[in-house]
Amino acid sequence: MGAFRAALERLVPVDRVAAERAERRQLSLTKPPGSLGRLEELASRLCAIASEVPPPLPHPAAVAVFAADHGVLSQGVSPWPAEVTAQMVANFAAGGAAVNVLARQMGARVVAVDVGVASALPRAGLPVSDGDLTGGLVGAKVRRGSGDISVEDAMEASELEKALDVGAQVATLLTADGARCLVTGDMGIGSTTPSAALVAAFTGAGAAEVTGRGTGIDDSMLEQKVKVVSAALQRSGLSGPEGAARARAEPLAALAAIGGLEHAALVGFLVGGAAQRVPVLLDGVIAVSACLVAAEVAPLARDYWIAGHMSAEPGAALGLRRLGMEPLVDLGMRLGEGSGACLALPLLEAAARTLSEMATFDSAGVSEIPRS
Amino acid sequence: MGAFRAALERLVPVDRVAAERAERRQLSLTKPPGSLGRLEELASRLCAIASEVPPPLPHPAAVAVFAADHGVLSQGVSPWPAEVTAQMVANFAAGGAAVNVLARQMGARVVAVDVGVASALPRAGLPVSDGDLTGGLVGAKVRRGSGDISVEDAMEASELEKALDVGAQVATLLTADGARCLVTGDMGIGSTTPSAALVAAFTGAGAAEVTGRGTGIDDSMLEQKVKVVSAALQRSGLSGPEGAARARAEPLAALAAIGGLEHAALVGFLVGGAAQRVPVLLDGVIAVSACLVAAEVAPLARDYWIAGHMSAEPGAALGLRRLGMEPLVDLGMRLGEGSGACLALPLLEAAARTLSEMATFDSAGVSEIPRS
Repeated sequence: MGAFRAALERLVPVDRVAAERAERRQLSLTKPPGSLGRLEELASRLCAIASEVPPPLPHPAAVAVFAADHGVLSQGVSPWPAEVTAQMVANFAAGGAAVNVLARQMGARVVAVDVGVASALPRAGLPVSDGDLTGGLVGAKVRRGSGDISVEDAMEASELEKALDVGAQVATLLTADGARCLVTGDMGIGSTTPSAALVAAFTGAGAAEVTGRGTGIDDSMLEQKVKVVSAALQRSGLSGPEGAARARAEPLAALAAIGGLEHAALVGFLVGGAAQRVPVLLDGVIAVSACLVAAEVAPLARDYWIAGHMSAEPGAALGLRRLGMEPLVDLGMRLGEGSGACLALPLLEAAARTLSEMATFDSAGVSEIPRS
Repeated sequence: MGAFRAALERLVPVDRVAAERAERRQLSLTKPPGSLGRLEELASRLCAIASEVPPPLPHPAAVAVFAADHGVLSQGVSPWPAEVTAQMVANFAAGGAAVNVLARQMGARVVAVDVGVASALPRAGLPVSDGDLTGGLVGAKVRRGSGDISVEDAMEASELEKALDVGAQVATLLTADGARCLVTGDMGIGSTTPSAALVAAFTGAGAAEVTGRGTGIDDSMLEQKVKVVSAALQRSGLSGPEGAARARAEPLAALAAIGGLEHAALVGFLVGGAAQRVPVLLDGVIAVSACLVAAEVAPLARDYWIAGHMSAEPGAALGLRRLGMEPLVDLGMRLGEGSGACLALPLLEAAARTLSEMATFDSAGVSEIPRS
């Protein structure tokens, strides 16, 4: 059995009793009840995930940046050339990208994972093993870029399975190596196109509604991108409400048809992290679109996932609404890589620390208001 | 001349040329233009404040928690007894309050400043001097609580001047002691009532619009609080559009009439921080209401102030809109103390670090898209 299927079998529900104990503990701390707002909900969630009150700090964190190329780029959906995917992987390995800077600030490590970059990159083979993590670059290429989803499936079923396994393996290795929180990252020129297609497929929304300007494209390229997303949905029978019913019934088939290799690895990573009982912070629209797939495959894992930030890409808001998630940070970012989610790490830590370190009314000798 | 007047004289505009240089530098970094969203604006702001590109890190930060009591508490505007103000000051000094936990996480120091607590607390006298900072508790009591603003002025002109000086002195001492970013904090049972009155006075909004549930009051207490705010506005002639014109023409007189001692100290702190050319992060509605006063007194200082978070208290949103500020964090918090603003510190640091540490297209060998 592969790493992904093994992770699915290990999943257990989060501990609701621990969440209730966390809520009771909040009432004893020196502050008006509820005055820490969403930090209090987050603290309860961390307790439920770890089954521990107060919860362990979600620290250190690890960001896995899954990188892949997209056949659909040949349809003119991005002004950036495909080579940039590989160039950025080198930038991640050298520590110069935005996600490196932000992860470093937050005390998190970054591992770039080549799950489907078109160019040649160092290759360590499959399955991913412990030693592969050390250089910050994991060679786990499943194939050289996905198929052009407007005319063909993104990948075959066997390739999908391999990519799912890569994600789950990386989650397992990072937690075994000490990560107490996982962060989704992604890199792939053209990746907002399959992301838009997945969001449309799983929400039933139209192509024009979910498709955005990605890294910043002009009106005519946006028009072309909408056509390409629409073509992918039509081709695969995943358009409109009927398509949505079909996507939810066979989520992995939809992923193989209109997703990308990094999306598949992210699904594995989301499920793998939940199986390890650590919180997984979602970055932007690529992670959200993968999460829509993962939520159908593994509903038990949903409570382990936390939306890190609100991407400026329209599919992100639509997908998060469908998932019932409210993001922690909203700064108009649209870079991907895991950069937005990194900014949410201190908020998670703050939720854990306030619950665990604040004085109680008793210990500090502070008067309480009479409870009604 | 007092510390506040001296700070007013030292104010200089932020450096717009540095902000433009920051924008140009952003374009050379390995990311699509604008993709870091508000982090890019923030980075420019930090450069303008420090007149340096890339900017110095806003680290370490220092939180000054100005504490005072409010005569208006006798009108039944809060279920908490006044003793809690002093008890919480002791909690700050012992490191057990929410702001201590969050500041510790962010590497920031906390100094509690008794500028008008009703109970006896250690007193170091005025002016505040360097040695007073070391224990984490500064005794700078101007008077024992403010007057009941529904029937009398909060303070006399000479007391106002002393409180303004305390704030400015604390800002100067903290920056002299190495703080590269100042954070506003506040503590005072009943403080959301004068805050609501100030927001109403400076925006022209009605009492019911600006008055919120503070630490969590019931409907009948809220009704009473609205009446009290309304009475304060009527008494002082600061109600409605005419009152707003008057408040803006004589902002310090309005502050003395319907504010609080911590509000006055915060005005001094905001101006003092700007005079030291460091960013000052605003916490919730108490800071916002003080900022409305400070912005009229010292328009040059405005560009040094950054809204840390959106408090759940209605006056915060109204005040920030009037100030043209958009907060960085929005997590439904309503605790005060500086707790919300502390959560924005990593975002400021992230803005500075991305601009200073990211690789450029040239240095990383990443292809650029042709500029149009």
